[in-house]
Amino acid sequence: MHENNILHDKKYMARALELALLGRFTTAPNPNVGCVIVREGKIVGEGYHVRAGEPHAEINALNKAKAKDEARNATVYVTLEPCCHTGRTPPCTDALIAAGIKRVVVAMPDPNPQVSGRGIYQLQQAGIVVDYIGSTTIKAKAEDINRGFLKRMRTRFPYLQLKMAASLDGRTAMASGESQWITSKEARQDVQNFRAQSDAILSTSATILADNPALTVRHGALATSVQKIYPKHGLRQPTRIIIDSCNRVMPCHRVITEPGACLLARMTADQQIWPDNIEQLFLPPSEEEKRIDLRLFMMELSRRQINSIWVEAGATLAGALLQIGVVDELILYLAPKLLGDNARGLCVLPGIDKLNQAHNFTLQEVCQIGSDLRLRLTPNP
Amino acid sequence: MHENNILHDKKYMARALELALLGRFTTAPNPNVGCVIVREGKIVGEGYHVRAGEPHAEINALNKAKAKDEARNATVYVTLEPCCHTGRTPPCTDALIAAGIKRVVVAMPDPNPQVSGRGIYQLQQAGIVVDYIGSTTIKAKAEDINRGFLKRMRTRFPYLQLKMAASLDGRTAMASGESQWITSKEARQDVQNFRAQSDAILSTSATILADNPALTVRHGALATSVQKIYPKHGLRQPTRIIIDSCNRVMPCHRVITEPGACLLARMTADQQIWPDNIEQLFLPPSEEEKRIDLRLFMMELSRRQINSIWVEAGATLAGALLQIGVVDELILYLAPKLLGDNARGLCVLPGIDKLNQAHNFTLQEVCQIGSDLRLRLTPNP
Repeated sequence: MHENNILHDKKYMARALELALLGRFTTAPNPNVGCVIVREGKIVGEGYHVRAGEPHAEINALNKAKAKDEARNATVYVTLEPCCHTGRTPPCTDALIAAGIKRVVVAMPDPNPQVSGRGIYQLQQAGIVVDYIGSTTIKAKAEDINRGFLKRMRTRFPYLQLKMAASLDGRTAMASGESQWITSKEARQDVQNFRAQSDAILSTSATILADNPALTVRHGALATSVQKIYPKHGLRQPTRIIIDSCNRVMPCHRVITEPGACLLARMTADQQIWPDNIEQLFLPPSEEEKRIDLRLFMMELSRRQINSIWVEAGATLAGALLQIGVVDELILYLAPKLLGDNARGLCVLPGIDKLNQAHNFTLQEVCQIGSDLRLRLTPNP
Repeated sequence: MHENNILHDKKYMARALELALLGRFTTAPNPNVGCVIVREGKIVGEGYHVRAGEPHAEINALNKAKAKDEARNATVYVTLEPCCHTGRTPPCTDALIAAGIKRVVVAMPDPNPQVSGRGIYQLQQAGIVVDYIGSTTIKAKAEDINRGFLKRMRTRFPYLQLKMAASLDGRTAMASGESQWITSKEARQDVQNFRAQSDAILSTSATILADNPALTVRHGALATSVQKIYPKHGLRQPTRIIIDSCNRVMPCHRVITEPGACLLARMTADQQIWPDNIEQLFLPPSEEEKRIDLRLFMMELSRRQINSIWVEAGATLAGALLQIGVVDELILYLAPKLLGDNARGLCVLPGIDKLNQAHNFTLQEVCQIGSDLRLRLTPNP
């Protein structure tokens, strides 16, 4: 029996999206995928992809359905086109065909060149009916939950979220450098949730030298709802990436001593002895020969399967990333304070002298976090 | 028959508040007052105060009820305690007593020292039942619609709204001074609505010299809903007040040549010939002897029956008003742009070197106006 009622399709795919999101703190560099198996109007299996190297969503759902011997002739709802290649696990298409699935509904094709329509083709060749979900809202959500993976697959650049925090007058620190804390405790906790969902956290030696932050995810600081799905044991720490053109980061800095992978992006080697969790990446300078070429750097990070980057840095890197056009989202926390013109500014944008050269954004979301505002903005083309 | 059901009281007082608001562009320096007369569960008369010197809300409502001969034994809902003094019109209490009203429900007492409870006392002495409305929401709204009048009556200072507009990084103009336009057309229209509701618009000679604005309300720029109740003919223009300590404003500036009252706040006279709509107010300098004493200036404006002031000025006056603590509300328009650190800052706050000296606010309201955000904030005590 086909589950081909449009409303049913929407309902089950919405559930598959919910499941997919449960993996958002752990699947990197793989995409988030959820799967629901329905037979005769009843969900007989559910699953989501938990961690790269472990079974895909379809396999987890099939295992539950097969335990009940109910996969045969069932409909499968999956948020991303099933894979047809052998990676760290065998192809999902083979498993769906073997299980005797009658219909597969997918929310979007997988742009991964190893899949890219061939998963759907294989299913169809085996006599399985394959439909794309009709709802544009659901399609948009399926895109949204894998922004990083999709951007990397399509453009070979990572999805970059630039986090900034300032007073109402756009100030990040007093003239003396004093900056702890401009935003509220709640805003700083909120940042932890963003960090936890990112493949990598990008910062600079200037920030390391000024504040000596660990740039790790602290399980205790996550929202309770996040703690439930973000495993405390075997916590996936985002890779910390520090731009250190002048070799100023030292082995004593917290970003080095705290456990978890850390990548130092440099131009030349130094004589320090670095622990095993540290990798040095040597990059060519930009045309002006003084700084790392950020665009090449982003392409290299993408090549290393980094889907999404959360940037916590100062006014200089923020401006540089904006000026080369690699920022996908600006997340701006605004504290309801005025610090005055002597305090330090948010963003260095050399060469912008006229109003029509300004960087323009579209406001996507505004919410109150503690006493602060959080704005989510996307750069205008 | 008493209309003493609490829900009825709330309903009729809510209607009286709606009526009161219709006067918000015209009643200055008088408060906004609305009145509803109810007999046997039916509204028999409604009115609001339109303009100083014209009849009060109670009289307008009574005239309608008496036309139907239905005021006797009715209940009167009025948003502010009825007056008991002869100003430009006779006391409302006398009219209510003469009409044979049985019960009066008021939303709040009138803090005007010429009334201040005596209106209620006179009604009670005449055998009229007087009740305050029970709902705290309605009481708060009754306060809110007369923020300016109430602040002046209670403190002898006007209610001051400081308008600011900036990019996300708190910049108001490019280094060259170019500033038209950072915010959207919709935001600039929104400003017109605020101007129209204010008794006065305050600016400085620096702004006049830089932009030569008219600082008038342009009927065509008001929202359609506002145009309906803001009369085009006999438009009340807020008094324009320009701080001009060094006598830099000239008779050719638009603020002088456009019709409507304009007050130049100065320290010494000059030799110019000024048209009739211009008044010069000579004020003593502050202790540092360079600038007008702003606190004394505010008290003088209050003495001149200016209830509410809308400030459109630059970073220096904004900072000075904040530092002497006379700002009641900050209205901040934020354009989704970044202008960079070379652009001009929002607020000059000399002497603020530490984060704990910052000016702190509470966010009261956020809304999107065109592509911009409008924040309404109140200073923390």
